[in-house]
Amino acid sequence: MLDGQKILDMHAHTYAPPELYAYKSGLLSSRGYHGKGNPGVSDERLEEATQRGLKIMDSVGTDMQFLSPRPFQLMHSEKPASIVHYWNEVNNDIIGRVVKAHPDRYAGICGLPHVSGEKDSAHVVAELERCVKELGFIGVMINPDPGEGDEYTPALDDEYWYPLYEAMVKNKVPALIHSAACKDMRESYSAHFITTESQVVLNLLKPESKVFKDFPDLRIIVAHGGGSVPYQIGRWRAARFNRMKGDPNLENFDTSLKRLFYDAVLYNKESLSLLFELVGTDRCMFGTENPGSGTATDPDTGLQLDDTAPVIKSIEWLSDQDIKNVFEDTQKRAFPLLKV
Amino acid sequence: MLDGQKILDMHAHTYAPPELYAYKSGLLSSRGYHGKGNPGVSDERLEEATQRGLKIMDSVGTDMQFLSPRPFQLMHSEKPASIVHYWNEVNNDIIGRVVKAHPDRYAGICGLPHVSGEKDSAHVVAELERCVKELGFIGVMINPDPGEGDEYTPALDDEYWYPLYEAMVKNKVPALIHSAACKDMRESYSAHFITTESQVVLNLLKPESKVFKDFPDLRIIVAHGGGSVPYQIGRWRAARFNRMKGDPNLENFDTSLKRLFYDAVLYNKESLSLLFELVGTDRCMFGTENPGSGTATDPDTGLQLDDTAPVIKSIEWLSDQDIKNVFEDTQKRAFPLLKV
Amino acid sequence: MLDGQKILDMHAHTYAPPELYAYKSGLLSSRGYHGKGNPGVSDERLEEATQRGLKIMDSVGTDMQFLSPRPFQLMHSEKPASIVHYWNEVNNDIIGRVVKAHPDRYAGICGLPHVSGEKDSAHVVAELERCVKELGFIGVMINPDPGEGDEYTPALDDEYWYPLYEAMVKNKVPALIHSAACKDMRESYSAHFITTESQVVLNLLKPESKVFKDFPDLRIIVAHGGGSVPYQIGRWRAARFNRMKGDPNLENFDTSLKRLFYDAVLYNKESLSLLFELVGTDRCMFGTENPGSGTATDPDTGLQLDDTAPVIKSIEWLSDQDIKNVFEDTQKRAFPLLKV
Amino acid sequence: MLDGQKILDMHAHTYAPPELYAYKSGLLSSRGYHGKGNPGVSDERLEEATQRGLKIMDSVGTDMQFLSPRPFQLMHSEKPASIVHYWNEVNNDIIGRVVKAHPDRYAGICGLPHVSGEKDSAHVVAELERCVKELGFIGVMINPDPGEGDEYTPALDDEYWYPLYEAMVKNKVPALIHSAACKDMRESYSAHFITTESQVVLNLLKPESKVFKDFPDLRIIVAHGGGSVPYQIGRWRAARFNRMKGDPNLENFDTSLKRLFYDAVLYNKESLSLLFELVGTDRCMFGTENPGSGTATDPDTGLQLDDTAPVIKSIEWLSDQDIKNVFEDTQKRAFPLLKV
Amino acid sequence: MLDGQKILDMHAHTYAPPELYAYKSGLLSSRGYHGKGNPGVSDERLEEATQRGLKIMDSVGTDMQFLSPRPFQLMHSEKPASIVHYWNEVNNDIIGRVVKAHPDRYAGICGLPHVSGEKDSAHVVAELERCVKELGFIGVMINPDPGEGDEYTPALDDEYWYPLYEAMVKNKVPALIHSAACKDMRESYSAHFITTESQVVLNLLKPESKVFKDFPDLRIIVAHGGGSVPYQIGRWRAARFNRMKGDPNLENFDTSLKRLFYDAVLYNKESLSLLFELVGTDRCMFGTENPGSGTATDPDTGLQLDDTAPVIKSIEWLSDQDIKNVFEDTQKRAFPLLKV
Amino acid sequence: MLDGQKILDMHAHTYAPPELYAYKSGLLSSRGYHGKGNPGVSDERLEEATQRGLKIMDSVGTDMQFLSPRPFQLMHSEKPASIVHYWNEVNNDIIGRVVKAHPDRYAGICGLPHVSGEKDSAHVVAELERCVKELGFIGVMINPDPGEGDEYTPALDDEYWYPLYEAMVKNKVPALIHSAACKDMRESYSAHFITTESQVVLNLLKPESKVFKDFPDLRIIVAHGGGSVPYQIGRWRAARFNRMKGDPNLENFDTSLKRLFYDAVLYNKESLSLLFELVGTDRCMFGTENPGSGTATDPDTGLQLDDTAPVIKSIEWLSDQDIKNVFEDTQKRAFPLLKV
Repeated sequence: MLDGQKILDMHAHTYAPPELYAYKSGLLSSRGYHGKGNPGVSDERLEEATQRGLKIMDSVGTDMQFLSPRPFQLMHSEKPASIVHYWNEVNNDIIGRVVKAHPDRYAGICGLPHVSGEKDSAHVVAELERCVKELGFIGVMINPDPGEGDEYTPALDDEYWYPLYEAMVKNKVPALIHSAACKDMRESYSAHFITTESQVVLNLLKPESKVFKDFPDLRIIVAHGGGSVPYQIGRWRAARFNRMKGDPNLENFDTSLKRLFYDAVLYNKESLSLLFELVGTDRCMFGTENPGSGTATDPDTGLQLDDTAPVIKSIEWLSDQDIKNVFEDTQKRAFPLLKV
Repeated sequence: MLDGQKILDMHAHTYAPPELYAYKSGLLSSRGYHGKGNPGVSDERLEEATQRGLKIMDSVGTDMQFLSPRPFQLMHSEKPASIVHYWNEVNNDIIGRVVKAHPDRYAGICGLPHVSGEKDSAHVVAELERCVKELGFIGVMINPDPGEGDEYTPALDDEYWYPLYEAMVKNKVPALIHSAACKDMRESYSAHFITTESQVVLNLLKPESKVFKDFPDLRIIVAHGGGSVPYQIGRWRAARFNRMKGDPNLENFDTSLKRLFYDAVLYNKESLSLLFELVGTDRCMFGTENPGSGTATDPDTGLQLDDTAPVIKSIEWLSDQDIKNVFEDTQKRAFPLLKV
Repeated sequence: MLDGQKILDMHAHTYAPPELYAYKSGLLSSRGYHGKGNPGVSDERLEEATQRGLKIMDSVGTDMQFLSPRPFQLMHSEKPASIVHYWNEVNNDIIGRVVKAHPDRYAGICGLPHVSGEKDSAHVVAELERCVKELGFIGVMINPDPGEGDEYTPALDDEYWYPLYEAMVKNKVPALIHSAACKDMRESYSAHFITTESQVVLNLLKPESKVFKDFPDLRIIVAHGGGSVPYQIGRWRAARFNRMKGDPNLENFDTSLKRLFYDAVLYNKESLSLLFELVGTDRCMFGTENPGSGTATDPDTGLQLDDTAPVIKSIEWLSDQDIKNVFEDTQKRAFPLLKV
Repeated sequence: MLDGQKILDMHAHTYAPPELYAYKSGLLSSRGYHGKGNPGVSDERLEEATQRGLKIMDSVGTDMQFLSPRPFQLMHSEKPASIVHYWNEVNNDIIGRVVKAHPDRYAGICGLPHVSGEKDSAHVVAELERCVKELGFIGVMINPDPGEGDEYTPALDDEYWYPLYEAMVKNKVPALIHSAACKDMRESYSAHFITTESQVVLNLLKPESKVFKDFPDLRIIVAHGGGSVPYQIGRWRAARFNRMKGDPNLENFDTSLKRLFYDAVLYNKESLSLLFELVGTDRCMFGTENPGSGTATDPDTGLQLDDTAPVIKSIEWLSDQDIKNVFEDTQKRAFPLLKV
Repeated sequence: MLDGQKILDMHAHTYAPPELYAYKSGLLSSRGYHGKGNPGVSDERLEEATQRGLKIMDSVGTDMQFLSPRPFQLMHSEKPASIVHYWNEVNNDIIGRVVKAHPDRYAGICGLPHVSGEKDSAHVVAELERCVKELGFIGVMINPDPGEGDEYTPALDDEYWYPLYEAMVKNKVPALIHSAACKDMRESYSAHFITTESQVVLNLLKPESKVFKDFPDLRIIVAHGGGSVPYQIGRWRAARFNRMKGDPNLENFDTSLKRLFYDAVLYNKESLSLLFELVGTDRCMFGTENPGSGTATDPDTGLQLDDTAPVIKSIEWLSDQDIKNVFEDTQKRAFPLLKV
Repeated sequence: MLDGQKILDMHAHTYAPPELYAYKSGLLSSRGYHGKGNPGVSDERLEEATQRGLKIMDSVGTDMQFLSPRPFQLMHSEKPASIVHYWNEVNNDIIGRVVKAHPDRYAGICGLPHVSGEKDSAHVVAELERCVKELGFIGVMINPDPGEGDEYTPALDDEYWYPLYEAMVKNKVPALIHSAACKDMRESYSAHFITTESQVVLNLLKPESKVFKDFPDLRIIVAHGGGSVPYQIGRWRAARFNRMKGDPNLENFDTSLKRLFYDAVLYNKESLSLLFELVGTDRCMFGTENPGSGTATDPDTGLQLDDTAPVIKSIEWLSDQDIKNVFEDTQKRAFPLLKV
């Protein structure tokens, strides 16, 4: 392994005391009738929670986490819009306080106040700029389905998203694609993550999409290893090969896949290996959500599933540079504002 | 490789002349005003198409295909219900004619006349029984989303589906899970296949589901290698381990996964290997959809993507019995009515 | 009868091989996921079908047919808009190929890519101009109900339709009013034709309508003999007489009726006679839809219902000029671009 | 003309003082909050209005009118159901009072309290029986579209209507088909009458309809000369001939047409002649709606349009018996309870 | 009591003959198909009704009534918009005729043609100006819920209402807040009055509302004593006190309440006393709706409930000026155009 | 004042640590995907919060509070039903633990797991019985609007509610009427309380309601002093007097009002006095919600608004028995299971 390599976990979420979520519960009940109010998370209570988080990081050897709001809590589909804005700001502020207190251990990725039913994404730009300019954040998190399970928001290749893309390019911040809750009763929020990530990959890369022509510097990171796409790559390769017969200038699907970045939030060696093999380690970044979806102990092995650094290192065919890519170098390329 | 092994491709669809789909187009335009009418597919035209199919099978060494209606054409969400019934019957009849003409090369899997908005699945039972008893079919194909992208039909663990499950068990036929078209503008029909298959696995296997308690002999085959689930297995293992802490009688997720069957309709070696490793070859069956979603030639290699028998055989760690499982034995166990 | 009179059947639809409708079926199933693709109608197959059509024309003595897309197939209410555009273009292209091959026997009337839910009709203008300028078409066909049975598109006297009217006047093309399919379960597409045609007449001619004030050169042809209006003329005369009491400048209903053109697509002598009597032969044109809705043989008489030229000629009170009007002269006045 | 023939106008509506409609206006505003209340139509005010009606009848030579509630006022689509019931009862009571006061000049046809959104038509039976048994009425009026322009109520061949049909047969009363208002903005209530009447004819007579098999004694009278159907008869004949090719037991469309009765509420000689010719005078009855839709004077001729008795008598080809059929005999056959 | 004091009843509604409401009933049935037509209220019939009204006024000692259309009849939620406009104009015209005939006894408050679903309130301005400039009216009546029980129209602090507010200020007319009918089945129109009035008070006065900052001269009169707000004042005071802790510039709720005017349309002494005490007599005006909601006789006391002038005078703690405020002076300040 | 009188505050809500509401926030985000789980409210944390509550009670001299779940947090309109059930049970369990720990200071009133869209109220009965039988609760809390601002649940006089009423009578528990959140953007949850309470009073007491005939022993307590009804009593008296003219057996509105109980959760002397005067102290009970909506200090007086015991005692016209009624005796009559 290369010397001096850092372990940057780019997919982690706020680890806050219950006061934060009690505040959210109140917003939902009052629908904002009492105004934004104050979430009542004191510095002491926040630092207590942060220390628990740092202890986890130390226990698995993580140098730094990129913190974003806990996605399934973001309630983008709720009305009125004011409570979505209040809640999102409060989440970013909490992250800002943690980052300010521990700048060597955390970097900030802001949530965006997506509101379902808007005519375009311009309504999230002000918060992006506040977080980058005032709080020093290095990335944003996009929920491609602010309706949380409805069908109303256009796909990510639609011009609906262009105001946000312009702001991202201008401010040099990449976006982590990560949906929030899901109100479709056939799909849990967790399964909805995978579904929406798959949709994002396929919609951004389809032949009709002009996104990367219009925004060549746009950086998109697809969470959870790209949803289902790497595993199902055969059907997308075939579809593309057939389209290429009519349009020889089309690039093949494997080339398209490399226009995106992916995190490595998968909790088993076989899938991690498949991801690295199909998209390349220079498009992949270490991520764990720890503590989060993978925080569980296998009763048979006693291993914690989201302690994946050793798993990654155990993949035989990865070179030292591959490993450095995953833990550090891809992060640095994807996040121009990152200071490590 | 074991001697005398047959190659049974359990995932293939009708290969019919354009008259069949022109008939469908007319049904949609008339909404059934002229009655069921006649699709006008003559024996000559049908046999012409079938010979083209057999030639493909011979070219890749397939002994037998299990034919089902071409799923994305099934239009389950259309109204009135009569045209869904007409169209589904016509498709099954076409398959029946092909099977009758070539009983050693084809077996029948019937489409079901799912109608979106019904109170339960009883409306599909008569057609299941007609196909099994009169046409000699050996399986059925379930569309878990008859609304083709809406959210109205309950998940597969809901009692909505029990009348169908009872008929399946009684008639000894397994079901291939395969959705149809998709009217959600963010997801193509092809991506919707993967989404709905993932949902089916997760809903049938979740701790609250009683399906396999209530129907211990039910056989469910999830198409396209189980959607996204094998690739994303880590998050589902973790969620289950956490539930097991509160309920020690729960089985782990890997055990649950083996309650289902899967087809191997994936078109790359890495994913096929992942599937076989995670669920076991005794739950997997060879399938290609050839001609179908994987029918394309890689311009670099010149190989056709859905010619996967050689790909499977090239997976180093598979034993001879593993290979025989995939090509023949699992099919025989999953389809009690299969006569080979 | 006058010498040298031609028989111009201005209401006829594409007569295409099943490949065309199989293509439509695929578009509906894929919702355009594979792009526009190719309908796969070869010149040979198209000419085969056309020869069958010419044979029919010859058998009944028709000199020329004005071909428009088969209306009930037009699927204007389907989503996304792209498949409506694809399908409509393909239909017009097929007609263009037939007209080009047989310019003395066919003239083209283009279908329009109406999309339900648009804010006005501007989205159909480009295709109108393509068909007139590039394919040499002489008229357009308007579906007054792109929602195919819903209630959302405004009536034809609404300014919604003005962009199209402007383009019609500018390009010197008349419009045949003809709805498409119908998803209202109480009304077949065929009955819906009559309903929508009646609505068009009544809405365009009502006292509040400004259409013919704003577009004095607009030419509108109402299919199927004006729907129900001529038969029910008494109630509309009475309503108008009552409105005239309050507004003496209003014209009476019979005068208003003559602002429109009508085709004579009725299949019995009594109704044809009623139509000619009430609106005048100088507003009526011969039309048959042959082969189409009237293509059936009366088992008692052995006569084919849509062979109406002899029926028209048998109406005792029609003068030679009346007959010439119906078969030829009204067509020439209504279609300025017609070259015969 | 035959001696002693009576002129029975079977299509006439309540002619009431404004108090009645002011009551309705109040019901709509209060949504029934004050209960049913009292419409406040005194005997004096009612008799005043009735005398005006009798004077009209005398002026055109009508012996008797069959009175039904003024249809476009019936507001079947309004909520809650209570106000529909209140209003319908009050209308029937008003008719009952007029009939009781002038039994030799009026007979009663009751309105029904159709409520949109019910699961079947059983909710109208009690009022039918009240009117027949207590008020001595001889017929009912069915609104086939209680939603007044929506698409929710099933067509008249649906079993939805069977409870009403049973009550009609049991009580020996025929039904006049007559819709009410229309909230579809593309169609006036008056045009909606024609549309719904056409639908009723086509739905009741279509090959799939079992109504006359299940209720051989059911008597249905279609208002306004059958809507558009007689005029458009050619297309329905053709469609039927084509269905007969597949099912030789089907009767032809002209035979089917004679299963229904029609009123002659058309206001011009050509259309009346067409109607009598196509369906036969033994299925037609004199009707005027006078005063109503046809009550207007042609300024050129000075004739009142709904004074159609002389018009009918002027149709050259009608025999004396034909004329007696229209004015008297068909009414007697259609209304078994009629006492004249 | 002060000498020469007039009793100005600022809350009274048209008292018209049934012809007016029969006209409305016809509009609803025809949906405007016959145009605006003529309500047919003759001068004689109108004066007859007016004399009945004047007799009532004299009997209770009222000098003048401010007449507005009877609110629950206004049918703002009906479609198409044309009938809402027709009906509203006819109501205002009736009031104009009464005021013109009896200028010393009546002043006019116009109804507005609110149409549910519009993007802002600009569509009511023309009628406001017509009534003020042509008919000499002195105020307007706003229905804050044109949807009559739906949830679609924004609250009165939304910029939706600004075009109307601008016109009110420019024309020096105050608005009486008074909703119309209610189609929510859990709430009668009468209860809906109270609900919407409470909403208006709370929405206009909430800390986020900028209405009185943007329109310092706007005059709003809340009907029926302010709905529930005075009675429930404690909870609104408490909420405001809590908001004031975070924003010391906020005024307290009692001060806010005095930004509005209230009528005294309450029919019992206790509630009238409560109202006067909490908001002050300089914000209150005498009103009775007589004849209207309070027109009933208590069988025990024999007193008519809406004869509230004596009740008000009997409130012990009111000073002479208080009483003069309620009966006359507040009216004069609230209605700058009032000439008495 | 009478000796030994206790002060029983019958309207108080859970006073819990933030963990409880963080749990709710998680349920909403996961939509129940992880099952019911554990709210994680330890005995220590709960007792800490309870001690804060007891301190408040002691400071204002309250002997006992009847605790119900905090209503605006109840989220009855959320889906799936499982999370409504989980959350409601957890709330009742929290109350059960507090009551068990301090049986002399607290009694329990259970929340009910109302689910919007059910066909009747039977789904809440099991939880009612669990709380009464297992947890020893003495009353229930009904949300008359489980849709939280929609219009779908029938009014309280509808038979929808009968299963619940039967269980209430059988178990001898009264119901406190108290709505939850409100998603109608024109009405805050707090204003919605008042609206729904007013509706409940008017619907239960209207002449058409049969509730108290069918359930003579049913006990209903309307929160917040009966909404707007006492203040607006004049209009309801008048409406009833008018109905009584047509039905002399009807009781007057004041008599009807006394069929219900009311709490005295009003925070000003004038309104409290009005309430007691109109409905009588034998139908009123002391209640404060402390801490809750009235917990605020008037900056001018320094008094806390919800410290209303002294306010009540200061009402001059109340007798000692009146005061004892409000503080103790009415509670004892309304809650048969209360042990004090």
